[in-house]
Amino acid sequence: MWASPFVKRVVFALKLKGIPYEYVEENLRNKSSLLLKLNPVLQQVPVLVHGGKPIAESLVILEYIDEIWKTGPQLLPQDPYKRSQARFWAGFMQHIFESLARVLETGGEAQEKAIKEVSERVKLLEERLKGYYPDGFPRSFDLKDVGLLEVVIFSHLGAYEAQEEVLGFKVIDPKNTPLIFSCIRAMIEIPEVSEMQNPHEKVVDFLKFVRENALKSAK
Amino acid sequence: MWASPFVKRVVFALKLKGIPYEYVEENLRNKSSLLLKLNPVLQQVPVLVHGGKPIAESLVILEYIDEIWKTGPQLLPQDPYKRSQARFWAGFMQHIFESLARVLETGGEAQEKAIKEVSERVKLLEERLKGYYPDGFPRSFDLKDVGLLEVVIFSHLGAYEAQEEVLGFKVIDPKNTPLIFSCIRAMIEIPEVSEMQNPHEKVVDFLKFVRENALKSAK
Repeated sequence: MWASPFVKRVVFALKLKGIPYEYVEENLRNKSSLLLKLNPVLQQVPVLVHGGKPIAESLVILEYIDEIWKTGPQLLPQDPYKRSQARFWAGFMQHIFESLARVLETGGEAQEKAIKEVSERVKLLEERLKGYYPDGFPRSFDLKDVGLLEVVIFSHLGAYEAQEEVLGFKVIDPKNTPLIFSCIRAMIEIPEVSEMQNPHEKVVDFLKFVRENALKSAK
Repeated sequence: MWASPFVKRVVFALKLKGIPYEYVEENLRNKSSLLLKLNPVLQQVPVLVHGGKPIAESLVILEYIDEIWKTGPQLLPQDPYKRSQARFWAGFMQHIFESLARVLETGGEAQEKAIKEVSERVKLLEERLKGYYPDGFPRSFDLKDVGLLEVVIFSHLGAYEAQEEVLGFKVIDPKNTPLIFSCIRAMIEIPEVSEMQNPHEKVVDFLKFVRENALKSAK
């Protein structure tokens, strides 16, 4: 499922670490027996198979990748408190994802409510990032500086321009969410990241497709 | 909130590591300004405050405790794959918790459905524990052997006798869920754990209270 931010998290982490991998696309409307075998509990992607052993849940996979492969950037910060904050906010992205999905799949009042929720949650993230980047987002930021939190923020909000085009509201912007905005722009400047970005039109078409189907089946 | 398994996880971890702490009870129906200040995002317990800095989300707190304090048992296994499995199943306990809550708060068909769900989920956990304890649950198991997974299993299912008494069905038993059963029995044998157990009658009364209120407000 190329469009899943949870899959992107893992793909990004493997690419950033320079780990060769085989990518197997999964059709979530018709789950393969391989997926059901590898992740019988949650039956979700992503699943990482390493040395024949399956690992599920994107944040668990990211910690595993960071522990196994010492090449490339270290995803978890060294300082235990900073680690805890990265883990907390990486977990919090689930809430932003759920609000964004509601915006995508509803209209009218329900959508307005969901848009407000996205804005509030993004604003919460922005506020707390001030503690995570006490001196502002680093001016010089390259591959070696990428951590868990940047991977996760970028996986969910890196296609913000496509989200804005389809959803018709500003998810992030330089004025209200300068740290998130700087984080995403800095990530895009990294060649290893930008080469993994899905083309804008592909994401727009996918989001439109999901939205149309959701609105149709809600009728 | 003494009855919360998410709070228990943290209390158990601190006790097992021998870390002195101050416990502040929170009334979740009338949240204190302290809680809202320390965990403005999720507004939930537990929150650990260490050196003036707040950490929220029980699993994030457990990892933090394990990284900061090297006394007592190491909660996360050394082996990265085993760590990933401990993290995955610790996360999965959330699903068992949600099903158990539904059993507690519903009657009739809805309750029957929820009971089936608990049984399926507990069975899934049992099945997978076979990979986690390939030689069966260790015969000799004491304080130093306790890990993240045992802490979390025990926090949620350690009061299984009280759950059974109030809910009227077997959550775990030696025949169908021998590994979970052995894990909980072994934990109870550890003095540092058993002294933290809430008295059976207190838990029964609490569960009855929650159940009666839920059924009343559902009417």
